[in-house]
Amino acid sequence: MTPATPRSPGGFQPSDPDYAERVRASFGRQKVMAFLGAELTGIGPGWCEIRLPYREELTQQHGYFQAGIVGAIVDNAGGYAGYSLMPADASVLTVEYKLNLLAPADGELLLARGEVIKPGRTLVITRGEVHVFRDGRMIHCASMQQTLMTLHGRPDRPAAGRKEKGS
Amino acid sequence: MTPATPRSPGGFQPSDPDYAERVRASFGRQKVMAFLGAELTGIGPGWCEIRLPYREELTQQHGYFQAGIVGAIVDNAGGYAGYSLMPADASVLTVEYKLNLLAPADGELLLARGEVIKPGRTLVITRGEVHVFRDGRMIHCASMQQTLMTLHGRPDRPAAGRKEKGS
Amino acid sequence: MTPATPRSPGGFQPSDPDYAERVRASFGRQKVMAFLGAELTGIGPGWCEIRLPYREELTQQHGYFQAGIVGAIVDNAGGYAGYSLMPADASVLTVEYKLNLLAPADGELLLARGEVIKPGRTLVITRGEVHVFRDGRMIHCASMQQTLMTLHGRPDRPAAGRKEKGS
Amino acid sequence: MTPATPRSPGGFQPSDPDYAERVRASFGRQKVMAFLGAELTGIGPGWCEIRLPYREELTQQHGYFQAGIVGAIVDNAGGYAGYSLMPADASVLTVEYKLNLLAPADGELLLARGEVIKPGRTLVITRGEVHVFRDGRMIHCASMQQTLMTLHGRPDRPAAGRKEKGS
Repeated sequence: MTPATPRSPGGFQPSDPDYAERVRASFGRQKVMAFLGAELTGIGPGWCEIRLPYREELTQQHGYFQAGIVGAIVDNAGGYAGYSLMPADASVLTVEYKLNLLAPADGELLLARGEVIKPGRTLVITRGEVHVFRDGRMIHCASMQQTLMTLHGRPDRPAAGRKEKGS
Repeated sequence: MTPATPRSPGGFQPSDPDYAERVRASFGRQKVMAFLGAELTGIGPGWCEIRLPYREELTQQHGYFQAGIVGAIVDNAGGYAGYSLMPADASVLTVEYKLNLLAPADGELLLARGEVIKPGRTLVITRGEVHVFRDGRMIHCASMQQTLMTLHGRPDRPAAGRKEKGS
Repeated sequence: MTPATPRSPGGFQPSDPDYAERVRASFGRQKVMAFLGAELTGIGPGWCEIRLPYREELTQQHGYFQAGIVGAIVDNAGGYAGYSLMPADASVLTVEYKLNLLAPADGELLLARGEVIKPGRTLVITRGEVHVFRDGRMIHCASMQQTLMTLHGRPDRPAAGRKEKGS
Repeated sequence: MTPATPRSPGGFQPSDPDYAERVRASFGRQKVMAFLGAELTGIGPGWCEIRLPYREELTQQHGYFQAGIVGAIVDNAGGYAGYSLMPADASVLTVEYKLNLLAPADGELLLARGEVIKPGRTLVITRGEVHVFRDGRMIHCASMQQTLMTLHGRPDRPAAGRKEKGS
C-alpha cells in the first residue's frame, strides 16, 4: 500500500504532516471505492494513485471499463492529490473535471494518477492520467484536467445521521 | 419505461426507425449500469434519460452520490442521446466530456438527461443535466458538455470472446 | 445598446441595482474588446450578449473567425453574465472554460450570449452559445461551459500604475 | 525563428517531411496571429511554440492579457502541434478545448506551447501550457486540453473568393 518511492513532482510541502493518514481515512469512507473494488495504492504531497482491477460488472457494451468508471477513479485520484496539500481542518470538493478518452480502457487493471498543477488557497487545479494494463503492456487511455475547491474549517468527516438516508 | 410524451428538443429525425430498441439493447449490454442500479427511463430522437436510485454503495465520504458516479450516468445519457441518431450499423464512443458539479448530489434519486446539440456525420456534440431529488425537491446538481464519435460500419455488439477476459 | 426586452432566463435578482452600468464600465476598460471591434449589446441579471462584426484581421487560414476569437468573446459574455449578479465591491475572474466548436464561424457577425446556470457565493457557473450570421441565416457555431470566481472586496477598477507596463 | 534544440516529447515521426514549412505557411495565413502580434517561434514533430508580446490592446480590465487571448494562442499552439503530424493533404480543425487559468497573465510576454498526447487517424488530442514572463520570472498561467480533427484530402489553403466577404 505504501509507495516504494514517494515522489512529489511539484515539490510541494504539505501543510498537514499527517496528510497521508488523512487521505487514507477519507478514501476509506468513500463507500463507492470499495464497491467498485478500487484501492488507494500511493499518496504523496500533491499526488495520488488509485488502482482498479478488471471486473465484468464495470464494463460497457464492448467489454471495456466504462468511461464513467474511468472518470470516477481519476476524479478521485485528482481529488486526493489536491486534498493531500489542504489543511487538516478542510475538506475537498470537485468543482469540475474534463476527461479525454484516448484509447479503449481494455485490460486487466486501471491505474489512475492525479497530480496538483496549481495549489491555490481556495482553488486547486490538478491533472490526471489513466493507464490500462493489457497483456503486459501499459496503455495511456485517459487524460483529465480538474478544478477542486478547498472548504476551509469543514473537516472531512461523515455527516451525522447520514446512515438513515433512504431508509 | 416508455416515456409518456416522447420529446425531441432539437426536432431530430432518426436515420434508424428502430433506434429505441437499439439503444435499449446496448444499454442492457452495459453491465456497469445494472451493477450501479441505473435504469434507462426515456429515449427519443436525440435525447436520453437515465435514473439512478440512492444506494449507500455509491456514496463518497459525505454520504452523497460520488462525483464520478454522477459522471458515469450523465456520460451514458449523452452517449445514448447521440447513439439514437446514429445509423443502425454504427457504434458510439465518448471522445471527451466535461462535467461541472453545481450542488452536492445529496438525495434519493439521480436523474440524468442527455441531449444532442449538434449531430455531425463523425462527431456528435451533446449536453447533459443531472438533477437530484431530495424530500420532494428537484435540485440541479451537474451540467455536462460532451463529444461523441460515430464508428460507422461497426455495429454495437458484444465482442466475441470478451467473456473470458480476466479468467 | 439597451436590449429591447430585458430577459432573465434564470429569474435572478441582482444584488447590485446598478449592475448594468457596472458591467458596461468594466467592458469599456477591456481594451481588447475595442481592439477586436466587439460591442456589448445586451446585459441583464445573469445574462450578457456581445457582438463582433467580421473583420479580415480576425480570421484563421480558411477565412473564418479564428476559434480563439470565438472563445474570447464567449468567455467575456459568460464572465459578464456572472459579474452582473456579483456584489458591487467584487471583481470577476475566469477559472476555466470549455468550448466546443460546432460549425465553422463563417459569416458577417458573431453573436455570443452568456447565461448563469448556478450562482454561488464564491463560484459562478455559466453557459455560453455563439451564433454566426451568414446570408441572413443564424448558425450555432460554438457552445461553452465556464467556471467564474467572485473576488469579494476587490472592486473591478484599473490597477494604479498599470499604464506604464511595457514602457 | 528556428528553435535551437528541436525536441519531440512524444518521439513522434511526422508523415510529411516538410511539416515545418507547411505549419509556417498555414500560420502565415492566419491573419489574426499577425493582428495580435503573435509569432510562431518553434515547431517540431508533435509540438509547437507561439509567443505573444504584451500590448495594451490585448488587455482586460485589470491590465492583464485577456483570458480569451491566452486561449487564442494556446489553441493555435495545440492545433499546429497536431497539424505537424498530419498528412500533407489534410487540414486541421479544433473540435474543442478546455482552458484552466492558473494565474493572472500579467507580464511582458506570453509563451504558449502545445504538445500532442495522442495522435489518432481522425482525432488528435493535445495539451497546452502558457507561461507569462514578468520581471525575469516565468509564471505558469494556463493549462489546456484539446481535441483536434484531421480533415483528410482537404489541404490547408485559403478558400477562393474569401477576400470579398463582408464587402
